[in-house]
Amino acid sequence: MILVKVGGAVGIDYDRVLQDVARYQDVVMVHGGSAELNNISTLLGKPPRMLTSASGHVSRRTDPETLAIFNMVYCGKMNKMIVEKLQQLGVNAVGLSGIDGRLLVGKRKHPRVVENGKKKVLRDDYTGRVDRVNVDLITLLLDNGFLPVITPPALSYDNEAINVDGDRAAASIASALDAEALVILSNIPGLLRDVDDEASLIEHIDADRAEEYMPFAQGRMKKKLLGAIEALDQGVGTVIFGDARVDEPVTRALQGRGTVIQ
Amino acid sequence: MILVKVGGAVGIDYDRVLQDVARYQDVVMVHGGSAELNNISTLLGKPPRMLTSASGHVSRRTDPETLAIFNMVYCGKMNKMIVEKLQQLGVNAVGLSGIDGRLLVGKRKHPRVVENGKKKVLRDDYTGRVDRVNVDLITLLLDNGFLPVITPPALSYDNEAINVDGDRAAASIASALDAEALVILSNIPGLLRDVDDEASLIEHIDADRAEEYMPFAQGRMKKKLLGAIEALDQGVGTVIFGDARVDEPVTRALQGRGTVIQ
Repeated sequence: MILVKVGGAVGIDYDRVLQDVARYQDVVMVHGGSAELNNISTLLGKPPRMLTSASGHVSRRTDPETLAIFNMVYCGKMNKMIVEKLQQLGVNAVGLSGIDGRLLVGKRKHPRVVENGKKKVLRDDYTGRVDRVNVDLITLLLDNGFLPVITPPALSYDNEAINVDGDRAAASIASALDAEALVILSNIPGLLRDVDDEASLIEHIDADRAEEYMPFAQGRMKKKLLGAIEALDQGVGTVIFGDARVDEPVTRALQGRGTVIQ
Repeated sequence: MILVKVGGAVGIDYDRVLQDVARYQDVVMVHGGSAELNNISTLLGKPPRMLTSASGHVSRRTDPETLAIFNMVYCGKMNKMIVEKLQQLGVNAVGLSGIDGRLLVGKRKHPRVVENGKKKVLRDDYTGRVDRVNVDLITLLLDNGFLPVITPPALSYDNEAINVDGDRAAASIASALDAEALVILSNIPGLLRDVDDEASLIEHIDADRAEEYMPFAQGRMKKKLLGAIEALDQGVGTVIFGDARVDEPVTRALQGRGTVIQ
């Protein structure tokens, strides 16, 4: 089984990715939608706001209104766009969010911020991270010939929808399914030594030395590398960061083009 | 098995509906989202446009941009709002659109309109009606303890997402599942003799005389009655038009409050 995560950043060519996904048996997909969420939020008069924690961790401010827009973009627009394209390629895809069938369950966080010099807990923020994956529902669909296409949000222990990072959700799912490979596709060639130079690709990382590469992981790459380390720790064979902008991006990644961590 | 369809019109109290749904075993839900689609479309600078056919049939003009907004509202906002509320009520709901797992398949229509005195076929309109229901996927979920929450769009024979009427989709699903009852909840008490007088409720209709009541079916009630006739023709025991604004709306409908057609 392979798990293909395709990002939601600008420049992703979904047609190329999905044409390649359609060549494989026994695949699960996870997707993002951040760029489109920024667009639609802005059009709806609710431009994106980011929070930075004391440790420098950046996350999206997700109040109830933002979460409703998040659901629209991730579960509505992006998920059904991918399912429709897969159906056109002859793949019987089923799109699910993490709240459907309690597919992804996790702990809700209560972010602390500093406002006017005072520390404050944001009580109306709905973010968190995935702790548990309902493998039974995914297996039920795979065994019956469906390709699951999974997207955040997840469900909190109090049954609230929560915004979770897609890369780390993908890592949790790959771990829970004992996937042979987790392919994480985005709009860059992989992990770069110099974030401004696509030629500075790091081609191979030993799993047990992966932590040493954290300094190279800038921006969104940070969570991808964290997810990769978690997945490898939990038995996933290989994690590959591949380029979503090339022909046959899944196949190329599986052939070792990109950053291979194993 | 009962099928509960809850409309998407203004004034629907989803909490009441879902609290009542949670009391039943062996339920499938179908929902709409028309009022919220009108809101969000307007906010996104794409206000709703309706088409009227030569026979007086009114439908939403669904160009590709409208369909993407349709997916956002129906599959994203409304579907996940319902799934989240059901999870909070202890019901393990799974939300699906008609394109997921080819759940609802039908023929795409090519609406004809008159523009500047000339007849014209709208080639970029994505509407149609449901011909086939993938009962296997619904049964698979029911047999494994999930409550399916189903929404348009459906999938055309050419694998395009198409906007289909939710009431008639619900009728097709109820028929395909041989449901004992199809409960159609909306923001009125049922079929009225006088559309402006809620006291003029028609309480009972014999299934074989249902066509005679078509003149009373104004606006959206027309498709509900058409759907009811189709469902009864195909073996559904009872169809009830009930009021979604009261306490225990499903239970009251099943007790005969509303318009009972059998």
